[in-house]
Amino acid sequence: MKRWKCTMSYDGTLFYGFQKQPNKRTVQGELEKVLSRMHGGAEVRVTGSGRTDAGVHAKGQVIHFDSPLHLPPAAWKKALNAQLPEDIYINEAESVSDDFHARFSAAEKEYRYFLHTGSEADVFKRNYEYHFPYELDWERINEACRIFEGTHDFTAFSSKKATVKGSKVRTLYEVSFRKNGDSAVFIVRGSGFLYNMVRILVGTLLDIGQGKAEPEEIRTMIAKKDRGNIGKTMPPQGLYLWKVIYEKS
Amino acid sequence: MKRWKCTMSYDGTLFYGFQKQPNKRTVQGELEKVLSRMHGGAEVRVTGSGRTDAGVHAKGQVIHFDSPLHLPPAAWKKALNAQLPEDIYINEAESVSDDFHARFSAAEKEYRYFLHTGSEADVFKRNYEYHFPYELDWERINEACRIFEGTHDFTAFSSKKATVKGSKVRTLYEVSFRKNGDSAVFIVRGSGFLYNMVRILVGTLLDIGQGKAEPEEIRTMIAKKDRGNIGKTMPPQGLYLWKVIYEKS
Repeated sequence: MKRWKCTMSYDGTLFYGFQKQPNKRTVQGELEKVLSRMHGGAEVRVTGSGRTDAGVHAKGQVIHFDSPLHLPPAAWKKALNAQLPEDIYINEAESVSDDFHARFSAAEKEYRYFLHTGSEADVFKRNYEYHFPYELDWERINEACRIFEGTHDFTAFSSKKATVKGSKVRTLYEVSFRKNGDSAVFIVRGSGFLYNMVRILVGTLLDIGQGKAEPEEIRTMIAKKDRGNIGKTMPPQGLYLWKVIYEKS
Repeated sequence: MKRWKCTMSYDGTLFYGFQKQPNKRTVQGELEKVLSRMHGGAEVRVTGSGRTDAGVHAKGQVIHFDSPLHLPPAAWKKALNAQLPEDIYINEAESVSDDFHARFSAAEKEYRYFLHTGSEADVFKRNYEYHFPYELDWERINEACRIFEGTHDFTAFSSKKATVKGSKVRTLYEVSFRKNGDSAVFIVRGSGFLYNMVRILVGTLLDIGQGKAEPEEIRTMIAKKDRGNIGKTMPPQGLYLWKVIYEKS
């Protein structure tokens, strides 16, 4: 038995998210279907670094699974890509030690949220960049990014549907943005994330950029563990799980 | 009754092409459904500059229709976009004279065919750029482009399924390409096009770029009205109806 780590991208548009669900097309479901076929019908359990919701994309999701098959990394990559649907692609397969765990070994994750800021809708971007054709004060957004960075209790910035028990304290190493013509992207890098946290955080930044709240209010929201009426949960199609970083072992 | 001209883009992925067909989702069908609703259920016939096949995109398709409604151009644009599905977008609506005809008044059309030439597949491009990770001799392709330009009988470069009667002589004003990192695009501009002509022409250019044929063979193919074994019909997802140009009246 050997443990394999795969780095993969997927277009989330046609998936009901990462996690397997009965009678739904999911990323985990498609992966396990192909792996089971490669193992003569035996069940092969796939573990991801975390779930992504329906419509959320990945450029660098990481999974692991165990297999008794003797295949070199390039052959795993080729065999999986040949059988997986076109909206999933394995970028890399590598053999790892038995104590590697796609979720628990992750030291850091990076998400990106893309906006199409042009005034006209673009049919070719509709599933990949959220259309936000409103004026934004990027100076104010920059100020707000600085406040988000660091170690905070992010209760106010997680979905009330979240089921995670325990501490809601997380550390964000980077909250920044880049603009390029009619596109803008938010980059959020941290130790871990609560449910819907990036989508709410971006919603809050946009409210601040539109003047609906002051950057300083973020401190109050963090302290009160309540975000009041600002910070909508942004739609999934702009969001990408961009990268998962593991400690060098 | 007033005649309206609309310039529109659509993502062809989820359409069975432009032309209305019973029980199929088509661009014309979606447009006529919305227009009929705006006219209290009366049928409004939409005429396009030409059909596009299933999976083929448009950045600048042009249509016309007649309407007794008194709406300014910006209101037409707004009303149509509010009711059309997300994969169709009206870029511009303008009132035109009664003798304007989206198809017969067209003087020139431009198509573009996009390739993703990187070695790795990209899930986010799969419907928008055809993946062609093979080495190409762009010098040879350039030579072939020069031979295609001009006035020729393009019988060899049209589908045998074509039903058009009459002359297969067309004039191509421009056959060129641009490369940009992992993307390449062919630009084909002409007086008119036969069925599948751009897709076959690009297939021929790629065969020549891969050394499967010599640029000079194009002259023989044109003369013999037969393309032999080269020049596959390229898949639809890389193709865009980019622009339709009308004589200034």
